[in-house]
Amino acid sequence: MTNHLAYDRLVDRFRLVATIGECASMLGWDAAAIMPPGGGQARGDQLAVLALLGHRNLIAPETEADLAAAEASGAWESANLGLMRHAYKRAKALPADLVEARAKANSNCEKIWRVARGEADFALVKPHLAEVLHLTRLSATALSEALGISPYDALMDGYQHGIGAGDVAPVFAAYEDFLAIALSEAERLQARHRDPVRPAGPFPIAAQETLCRDLAQRLGLDFNHARLDRSAHPFSGGTPTDVRITTRYAEDDVTSAILAVVHETGHALYERGLPPAYARQPVGEAAGMAMHESQSLIVEMQAVRSDAFLGWLGGRLHATFGGEPAPYGAENLGRLWRRVRRSTIRVDADELTYPAHVILRFRLERAMIAGDLTVADLPGAWNDGLHALLGITPPDDAQGCLQDIHWYDGAFGYFPSYTLGAMAAAQLMQAARATIPTMDEAFGRGDVSPLLVWLRTHVHGIGSRLGFNTIMEQATGRKLDPLAFQNHLRLRYLTPASAFGIDRGQ
Amino acid sequence: MTNHLAYDRLVDRFRLVATIGECASMLGWDAAAIMPPGGGQARGDQLAVLALLGHRNLIAPETEADLAAAEASGAWESANLGLMRHAYKRAKALPADLVEARAKANSNCEKIWRVARGEADFALVKPHLAEVLHLTRLSATALSEALGISPYDALMDGYQHGIGAGDVAPVFAAYEDFLAIALSEAERLQARHRDPVRPAGPFPIAAQETLCRDLAQRLGLDFNHARLDRSAHPFSGGTPTDVRITTRYAEDDVTSAILAVVHETGHALYERGLPPAYARQPVGEAAGMAMHESQSLIVEMQAVRSDAFLGWLGGRLHATFGGEPAPYGAENLGRLWRRVRRSTIRVDADELTYPAHVILRFRLERAMIAGDLTVADLPGAWNDGLHALLGITPPDDAQGCLQDIHWYDGAFGYFPSYTLGAMAAAQLMQAARATIPTMDEAFGRGDVSPLLVWLRTHVHGIGSRLGFNTIMEQATGRKLDPLAFQNHLRLRYLTPASAFGIDRGQ
Repeated sequence: MTNHLAYDRLVDRFRLVATIGECASMLGWDAAAIMPPGGGQARGDQLAVLALLGHRNLIAPETEADLAAAEASGAWESANLGLMRHAYKRAKALPADLVEARAKANSNCEKIWRVARGEADFALVKPHLAEVLHLTRLSATALSEALGISPYDALMDGYQHGIGAGDVAPVFAAYEDFLAIALSEAERLQARHRDPVRPAGPFPIAAQETLCRDLAQRLGLDFNHARLDRSAHPFSGGTPTDVRITTRYAEDDVTSAILAVVHETGHALYERGLPPAYARQPVGEAAGMAMHESQSLIVEMQAVRSDAFLGWLGGRLHATFGGEPAPYGAENLGRLWRRVRRSTIRVDADELTYPAHVILRFRLERAMIAGDLTVADLPGAWNDGLHALLGITPPDDAQGCLQDIHWYDGAFGYFPSYTLGAMAAAQLMQAARATIPTMDEAFGRGDVSPLLVWLRTHVHGIGSRLGFNTIMEQATGRKLDPLAFQNHLRLRYLTPASAFGIDRGQ
Repeated sequence: MTNHLAYDRLVDRFRLVATIGECASMLGWDAAAIMPPGGGQARGDQLAVLALLGHRNLIAPETEADLAAAEASGAWESANLGLMRHAYKRAKALPADLVEARAKANSNCEKIWRVARGEADFALVKPHLAEVLHLTRLSATALSEALGISPYDALMDGYQHGIGAGDVAPVFAAYEDFLAIALSEAERLQARHRDPVRPAGPFPIAAQETLCRDLAQRLGLDFNHARLDRSAHPFSGGTPTDVRITTRYAEDDVTSAILAVVHETGHALYERGLPPAYARQPVGEAAGMAMHESQSLIVEMQAVRSDAFLGWLGGRLHATFGGEPAPYGAENLGRLWRRVRRSTIRVDADELTYPAHVILRFRLERAMIAGDLTVADLPGAWNDGLHALLGITPPDDAQGCLQDIHWYDGAFGYFPSYTLGAMAAAQLMQAARATIPTMDEAFGRGDVSPLLVWLRTHVHGIGSRLGFNTIMEQATGRKLDPLAFQNHLRLRYLTPASAFGIDRGQ
């Protein structure tokens, strides 16, 4: 008995599950941005209850019966039904006691990781990470059997549906080859120029906040449907009609707040641009974390850090904070905000070396999930791997394998999204520039709207109707192609005439 | 098969339902305090889903079976089980389609009420209020049958369990008699004195905010478990370990922000003082809305507005804002913040005339629920009733029967809580003063902790183990006795020597 009524019931059920997810998303934002610390324990319980209720409603027996019977009509419904079946399969594959044990182990390990990182003492967290890894591998195996893909791919699939290690490994290998030559060449070219000048503060925080808000608005964020707040670690959260971004401010530095805001605004614009007709349906969601990262990076790295936009932004900064005009010139800002420097810390890395950090983690987590690398051997493997990639060694584990929260909170298979996103951003920008010849003129007026219109058509408005690879193909004429990113880097960092402040913004 | 396992299962179930309620409470706070307006529609859906899930889990068939079988041991468990049975009865009495229809009608009517009040046009909202009343009466009848009490009492019971019109009517009648003499006498005495002087602003909002935060902290609020924000209408919300209060600030007035903060702090302290061992159980909740109001009013009206505390607070205000010291003297502040003035607006009313507003609404809503007053006759009945009580008539319906959100959002049976709370506050304060002779000395140092300790023992820590009347009896030696409130008013407003600034704070 195949029918459309079954599909309609599924739409209702997934709407319910998604609305529960929205509650969790808002409460998660609250916890990270504004909750008083004493509310943490109760909040953990609240989020656990919402997760339980979402899961319970998703795996209800009626879901299975309706999924078997449902008939969809048209591309959107068919894609939606496919994603529903996939979501059900993933949820059903994991026994409830394993889900619960993992949640507890992750939360416990994350707490101890904070202490271990503070004391640069890996031994402290080692047994807890081993437990997290053990339970993650059990989950990966269960998901692998249900989905018919490898355990590591089954984990990746949870963040970026349809992309696996087979897609990522050759792309990363090519980048490694590129970097082996490009890094020292970029450093050589950079050394030819004088060091950039850092604008002198102080930068009053109220003025920074006003500027950040104006900037987000100018990039296309509508504060009728958004908030900008402060948090220790900038992030974006909320729901498509109520997106919430955060940044952090320091009196003596204006860079950090602004670049975080433009990055998070990119994420927020993606959520805002998702197709409202399919809100709260799997097909109406963002097309995975790599695509999400591409949208933050196309705004931050491709648009805002372009010469043209920096020219406008520098003027705006100078008008706001006064002082010497020279540090706010596009050339100086470009050299300041696009500086190559080998760092042991991923979040401090520049655009060129960032992928090396991701490649390292991809390799290590894949080996851990495969059982080829034990937790005990992780610090050594980390340090050796980083040295091979960037020629530097962390002074301690706090600046090595303890630096990221991922893994310690159970997130394995997420890291590749960062670099897939950077590569997709470059490729999307190349395609957008090809169809909008006046793009950089608009950037020079601080106007990003032509790009936003293009992204709404080619990415945001598609939701998850197409997968990552198909979106890339339809938007750019080809699948993810790491050469677009390499070309972008070549023009920005490796062309003597254009490097550090005079690139033509390709 | 009577057993304790059934009780334990019920504890788990009610914990789940309460945790869902916590999610709704936090999201309700967010919506009222900080949500961007464009998030409203999605938030409505989220709250509706949480209400549905809470209700579904409460009325599950297992609940009924366990309630029939459960055995409790000890006073706390027995009270808890009794409250569980009561909550189940209430939830089960209402058919799901009626609950849904009411929610829609209330929400719709509230929206139109905002327009109608803005335009002082009762006709606009009349049919919508009639629909709300119709559905409320259907609910009241269903609840009445399930609980074996009158329809109006069944509505009151939802706000203040165990208190009905039979308790309230004689108390209100006595107050009406008292007021008939007291009001003009208070006005006569007040007229003998010169008018109080209003402190001259401006009062910078940042300084007000710091002062309000310090004041809340001094009253006992721990900001490790609380937030203070801004909203158009001050309120308190959140959960016992994460209470959230709001106030509003105006540059030219310091009274409004401060008095709202001390009121909401009273509510927040009650939540903070509930018994943690019974968190998320019916017995661990506050003992109804009248008791809640008593806790905000004992702080605002009894403690902070006492001569002793005003003496301290005036000094603090002058130290903060500077200017002439005279307006900040206890006597002037007392006359300013305890001024009797017949107002058509409830929220602007003083302590003495406020109950008249409540008595009017109690009488009218009881008649509407009984079917003795139609919506069409409401404006006239309102104006006549107010004139009989206070001798004044609203110039239009915006300042008459359109002034309060209650009724238009479906809240019938709530109004009596305000005045029951005021009376309970006076009676509790009288008892606390009798056991703590140094209370006013402490108030004179801005120290409310002796009162807070007493309230924690006699009210907060009891949760709902005892009902309103029993809490009053055990704390004060007698049931709610309106004379304590009248004595308080006599000393503050009707004693020539002590009125307006020199009362002995009884």
